[in-house]
Amino acid sequence: MYCFRNGEIVPCEEAVVHVSDLGLLRSYAAFDYLRTHNGRPFRLKDHLARFRNSAAGLMLPLEYSDEQIRDIIGELLERSGQEEAGVRFVITGGNSPDSMTPVKPNFFIIVEELPHYPPDYWEKGVKLITSDYQRDVPGIKSTGYLNAIKLMPLIDRSGAHDVLYCHDGQVLELARDSFFLFKENTLVTSKENILLGITRMVVLELCQNVFPVEERAVRADELTQATEAFLTGTTKGVMPVVKIDDNTIGDGTVGPNTRKLMDLFKQHVGRN
Amino acid sequence: MYCFRNGEIVPCEEAVVHVSDLGLLRSYAAFDYLRTHNGRPFRLKDHLARFRNSAAGLMLPLEYSDEQIRDIIGELLERSGQEEAGVRFVITGGNSPDSMTPVKPNFFIIVEELPHYPPDYWEKGVKLITSDYQRDVPGIKSTGYLNAIKLMPLIDRSGAHDVLYCHDGQVLELARDSFFLFKENTLVTSKENILLGITRMVVLELCQNVFPVEERAVRADELTQATEAFLTGTTKGVMPVVKIDDNTIGDGTVGPNTRKLMDLFKQHVGRN
Repeated sequence: MYCFRNGEIVPCEEAVVHVSDLGLLRSYAAFDYLRTHNGRPFRLKDHLARFRNSAAGLMLPLEYSDEQIRDIIGELLERSGQEEAGVRFVITGGNSPDSMTPVKPNFFIIVEELPHYPPDYWEKGVKLITSDYQRDVPGIKSTGYLNAIKLMPLIDRSGAHDVLYCHDGQVLELARDSFFLFKENTLVTSKENILLGITRMVVLELCQNVFPVEERAVRADELTQATEAFLTGTTKGVMPVVKIDDNTIGDGTVGPNTRKLMDLFKQHVGRN
Repeated sequence: MYCFRNGEIVPCEEAVVHVSDLGLLRSYAAFDYLRTHNGRPFRLKDHLARFRNSAAGLMLPLEYSDEQIRDIIGELLERSGQEEAGVRFVITGGNSPDSMTPVKPNFFIIVEELPHYPPDYWEKGVKLITSDYQRDVPGIKSTGYLNAIKLMPLIDRSGAHDVLYCHDGQVLELARDSFFLFKENTLVTSKENILLGITRMVVLELCQNVFPVEERAVRADELTQATEAFLTGTTKGVMPVVKIDDNTIGDGTVGPNTRKLMDLFKQHVGRN
């Protein structure tokens, strides 16, 4: 695997940062993550727009155009000999002289193997547990995942796939994925205090003229009223959710609306 | 300057981590920071106890004894030719194979130059601005300082020295320092939802039999009732605060109780 680091392409094993890096010492870093479908980056433009917005929110200048980044990704994939892969962009506050002040950013593009999930996750759906949390700066895709990783043992003990963040009586998002529910044929998803997922955006596009959509604050008690639920994310696409804490969603199987969206999404990525 | 990295001592410029490090990619890291006084680490035992507690909170094993760490610091200071210096401990979730799962930690000890502040900060006191924030996991000294760094331009524009975090109507702490106020001769400081500072602990020890102390939740409206205020931190010791937002503390000069504590603290570190 190959990696782009501050202007040069290096083998991943040689890709290092100095210990004075502000992403490492102070979590001052933004990132984004996309995957390929059919060997081509999926929704690159949308991911880069979000990544630029995150970097700008941290006042970190990104000195590469979309076209330059597209070319770099192409070269990384070719050299890495990967057909389908994950691509991670990371920009940090740079090698700070005083461990606090941002300087010239460090910027990386890393090609990664895609994670594999059991087919059961899509065929039978997954379980989530809720946890009270809201990202520090929800609109910026920062590297702040300490809480999510700290919860991993609890998720494992609960036999759950992942955690659904709720806060102030509202349903928000997963640590790395967006959350949707159906109330009969109406699709409902939260809109504020979350990171706006790219797969979430695709699903909302696909739903036009198919389902009525409500993008709004989702109350925690609406989880018990959901007839279907699912999560969306770059590596998971559309993945059904059949249980949240002790509450079974619908009849506990993957519902027809979710199946329809999974089909629509599959067709959509097939055209990438 | 020299740095300890996973068992070896290297010149600081060679101290690097791999880009798969979970501290860098996911902010999954704990740290601590001490300084020397008279060439010797100040309150090493207390700092290491807190560092071990932070690492344990993140389930990161630290495989060095206090004695081993004391010896490593001694060697780092000697090789670096530093009399007085800052010493930073960092432990991360290691080089993760899937960018999410903690593995064998990366552990560093970095010797750093101490920051210098103008003598005016102690003679005339500093200004703070308040901001609504509470650390994600207040009891763990994690590397999560994105919010603090993001606020730096606002602090500069306000002509302030730093930011005082308040949340849910309570006064908490600064990003890197603890906060105290006097109501006449009674010393008041918050106790919950903050990181318990080592200099804070020293000041509380020094106040025994000198001032009545109330360690308790501090309401935001008590800021206007304060007759004196100060902050404490490793690099700042006891530093007077004379203004918070638009509110002048006392008569806007360094008060007698704060002066007394500054003297007591100076005597105390002189004995290190």
